[in-house]
Amino acid sequence: MSRSGSHSHRVRWWCLIVAVVAVWVQQVEGVWPLPQQLHQSADRDCLSPQRFSFTYGRDSAAQTGCSVLDAAFKRYFSIIFPDFTTLSENVLQYMWSEPQPFVVSVSVKTRGCDGYPDEDSDESYTLSVSEGQAVLRSVSVWGALRGLESLSQLVYQDDYGTYFINKTEIVDFPRFAFRGLLLDTSRHYLPLYAILKTLDAMAYSKLNVFHWHIVDDPSFPYQSRTFPDLSNKGAFHPFTHIYTQSDVIRVIEHARMRGIRVVPEFDSPGHTQSWGKGQPGLLTPCYKGSVPSGSFGPVDPTVDTTYKFMASLLKEVKFVFPDSYVHLGGDEVSFACWQSNPNVRKFMEKMGFGKDFTKLESFYMESIMNMTAALNKTSIVWQDVFDYHERIPQDTVLEIWKGAKYQTELSRMTQAGHRVLLSAPWYINHISYGQDWRNSYAVQPQNFSGTDEQKKLVIGGEVAMWGEYVDATNLSPRLWPRACAAAERLWSNEEKTLNADLAFPRLKEFRCELLRRGIQAEPLFVGHCRHEYDGLQLIFSLTGLCCC
Amino acid sequence: MSRSGSHSHRVRWWCLIVAVVAVWVQQVEGVWPLPQQLHQSADRDCLSPQRFSFTYGRDSAAQTGCSVLDAAFKRYFSIIFPDFTTLSENVLQYMWSEPQPFVVSVSVKTRGCDGYPDEDSDESYTLSVSEGQAVLRSVSVWGALRGLESLSQLVYQDDYGTYFINKTEIVDFPRFAFRGLLLDTSRHYLPLYAILKTLDAMAYSKLNVFHWHIVDDPSFPYQSRTFPDLSNKGAFHPFTHIYTQSDVIRVIEHARMRGIRVVPEFDSPGHTQSWGKGQPGLLTPCYKGSVPSGSFGPVDPTVDTTYKFMASLLKEVKFVFPDSYVHLGGDEVSFACWQSNPNVRKFMEKMGFGKDFTKLESFYMESIMNMTAALNKTSIVWQDVFDYHERIPQDTVLEIWKGAKYQTELSRMTQAGHRVLLSAPWYINHISYGQDWRNSYAVQPQNFSGTDEQKKLVIGGEVAMWGEYVDATNLSPRLWPRACAAAERLWSNEEKTLNADLAFPRLKEFRCELLRRGIQAEPLFVGHCRHEYDGLQLIFSLTGLCCC
Repeated sequence: MSRSGSHSHRVRWWCLIVAVVAVWVQQVEGVWPLPQQLHQSADRDCLSPQRFSFTYGRDSAAQTGCSVLDAAFKRYFSIIFPDFTTLSENVLQYMWSEPQPFVVSVSVKTRGCDGYPDEDSDESYTLSVSEGQAVLRSVSVWGALRGLESLSQLVYQDDYGTYFINKTEIVDFPRFAFRGLLLDTSRHYLPLYAILKTLDAMAYSKLNVFHWHIVDDPSFPYQSRTFPDLSNKGAFHPFTHIYTQSDVIRVIEHARMRGIRVVPEFDSPGHTQSWGKGQPGLLTPCYKGSVPSGSFGPVDPTVDTTYKFMASLLKEVKFVFPDSYVHLGGDEVSFACWQSNPNVRKFMEKMGFGKDFTKLESFYMESIMNMTAALNKTSIVWQDVFDYHERIPQDTVLEIWKGAKYQTELSRMTQAGHRVLLSAPWYINHISYGQDWRNSYAVQPQNFSGTDEQKKLVIGGEVAMWGEYVDATNLSPRLWPRACAAAERLWSNEEKTLNADLAFPRLKEFRCELLRRGIQAEPLFVGHCRHEYDGLQLIFSLTGLCCC
Repeated sequence: MSRSGSHSHRVRWWCLIVAVVAVWVQQVEGVWPLPQQLHQSADRDCLSPQRFSFTYGRDSAAQTGCSVLDAAFKRYFSIIFPDFTTLSENVLQYMWSEPQPFVVSVSVKTRGCDGYPDEDSDESYTLSVSEGQAVLRSVSVWGALRGLESLSQLVYQDDYGTYFINKTEIVDFPRFAFRGLLLDTSRHYLPLYAILKTLDAMAYSKLNVFHWHIVDDPSFPYQSRTFPDLSNKGAFHPFTHIYTQSDVIRVIEHARMRGIRVVPEFDSPGHTQSWGKGQPGLLTPCYKGSVPSGSFGPVDPTVDTTYKFMASLLKEVKFVFPDSYVHLGGDEVSFACWQSNPNVRKFMEKMGFGKDFTKLESFYMESIMNMTAALNKTSIVWQDVFDYHERIPQDTVLEIWKGAKYQTELSRMTQAGHRVLLSAPWYINHISYGQDWRNSYAVQPQNFSGTDEQKKLVIGGEVAMWGEYVDATNLSPRLWPRACAAAERLWSNEEKTLNADLAFPRLKEFRCELLRRGIQAEPLFVGHCRHEYDGLQLIFSLTGLCCC
């Protein structure tokens, strides 16, 4: 290949022509979620996939061989150039010989390529795009991932398919460290691909915690190595509707590669009907008068075997899930069954709990939280545990899920010195007609009465997609782009993102981008995407083929 | 292959064993929508795909070569035996030699294999399933299609994968002749495969009219042969977001094969913003004071060119769409623009309409309806035309869409002697959390004050899926199984289907069946399907592959 001056000149001339012609074509609306600081100029570079490269900065602690970033370079190349093929390469080479190079240089301060993101991970980054290059700097590889995502959203195509990026300066960091999304794999089983796809879209939205509500009353799909009967007998199906150990590893690794933590929830003592099938003696036998009714209630908190079982299970959980957090549930415990059971009543008497079953619940939860602490894990529990409990280990994270008066709850919990997660206003399995993302967007997680210290105790929030009416058939369009509203609230500066009308065109564009990346994200309103269904084309054409 | 007695004996013995063992396995819940008469016995036959066949009865007017039924036999074989492969054939032959034959004999009274279903089509059928055979009788091929659908829903598998069908007698016919579903391809473009898939699911639900709301304000995707600029300039994209003539033919043929009529809607004089782009002079220029504002209102009803254009367009529509009905819209006409335009005001004066713009609207609609009548087509119009119009051609079909007081409207319209379609309570693009299919199911289309004669004027109803918030990403899970509720209301005996709780298990099973047939139907509640995602497996595995 010739690198003669005339060729080079031709390329520049062409790029210029394109740039001039394209002044009035649609530009990129921005980045979702909005970076803390973003300055863009009208100057822009055209990018050629043939001459585009990622490289590690000389001063970077991570270099080639860094699993997280090597994989991210590969992934983002395809995301940035979705229609790149070797065919187009040949055509372009024939036409324009050598295009201009564009190098993305990535530098991280600390290596940590083989670790897991955690509560203390530094996700900040700076990104500077200028002629022929972009410089991305971050403390950690997780920050670099966030920067690569922003970079990918800065690239756009004109009507001729030419790729552009404007000169840009970004200084960015998350407002909250904990930006979660809950999937419920018990009420309906979600196949692995549905979870992996969700992780992809989470990374695009800079959500960083996958709260895996993995088991509950209806089914127990987690295949435990210690207690295989839990899924053998408690899953919808013991082979097709389970998550094997290797499935779990795959989810955790897929998440790690995207800077996403996986926090499992093993909710007890309520929400455990499916546990009882594979673990006889675990649940409280309910009584009708003086005889067992044949049905079972919450975990039996009065027998030693329960605590031995829970200790073994939590030990396994610690081993399987690397995150320092584990969710222990503790919500919606019905007392009727406990009340009916003579052994439980006897235990209550012995312990001096009187008729107050919240004391029994607290006794159980405290034991479980202590076990968790002994395993060096931080517990998250649902707000019920705080509501019914006098003392609670100080470092327990409390999660608010009850819709009414969550501001009051925020005040009370932070006044008690607890770290808090807000989920109540983001139960987006609840759908309504129209642009209900605006409700999520209007939430102000720190708008409650309290000191600055209290406000800091809000460590983030979670979008929840409960599974009563959701499985793999409707998960994606119900999640995306609706979850993006909370994602921006949790990442961006609230002052700059209060106006949903201003956010609308940017979210609309981001939704089109999700679609192009193969996420089945539903429309926000009337209209169309430029690259509509590109990402779903293969799927759609196959669907078409099978049935005509 | 040996046909010795001992082999044959072995087969019968095996079939018996299976039948005895399987007494307590789950049986089929029934057929959706519920047939008018259905009697089932516990006696059942096991079916072998190898020895299962469709045949034309000797007395049948249609025989091999009948396009509609030949294709239906092929389609329903795969639907009835979704996991049939030549591999399983070999295995079974090795194991059991010759299985028992099962013959479905289909007899129709009138041939009509190459025609189109229409308002007078007889969809009744009888189906008698006994040992080794099923006899399906109908007047028309359309009735035979309905019977094949019911037959396919009678077949089920036990835990060993063996196929069964119980002895059954069905006498069935639709309660209403017009059981429609509206798709809106203007607010969002729906790719062809999404429409074809919808037609598949409609046939499974025995819906028989595809109301194609093909154009509207936002876009004009119909590629007209007479006025190609309408889509060239009015579609979201002139090549990717259009329906070519051959696309339309494909939709009509796909529908015909399933006994589904295609009724196009060319809504005017309102809802025509996109028309104006490719047809200058068609829309009314709005005025600000004494000068044109640059924006346009409804179709200009004061100029001859409008009527010439509409006559040409409707002539083309008659040619392209074989159905005897055409929907002319006529809803939501805003008078503000007409009012602002001095020429329109002059015309009003000349015609003696005073200040009453409903008279102008009526004048326009009457002209259009007369054109349609001259083309031997029956007009459907939205209720607005009746509400604002004194006289209306008697054979015009009126469609009710306004939610409030639709019972009163049913009374008024039928009292005026008009045939009526009910859609108002079935605008299922409107979603709410939970089992909102129950609302659709509770609708009683003939529960209004009126004579028996009036009740008979209700010719059916329509499920509407408007496109403000719906495109191919969320169409299927929003439609299915929610649309099935109205489908049963329109087909089945209301007395036998009033209780939604009783219908629930049958609908749940039907939804699983839809899923198995590749329709992305969302769940009704917590749980799982036995063959969950089988029909979507290919799609899902590909989605998985592309992104891990």
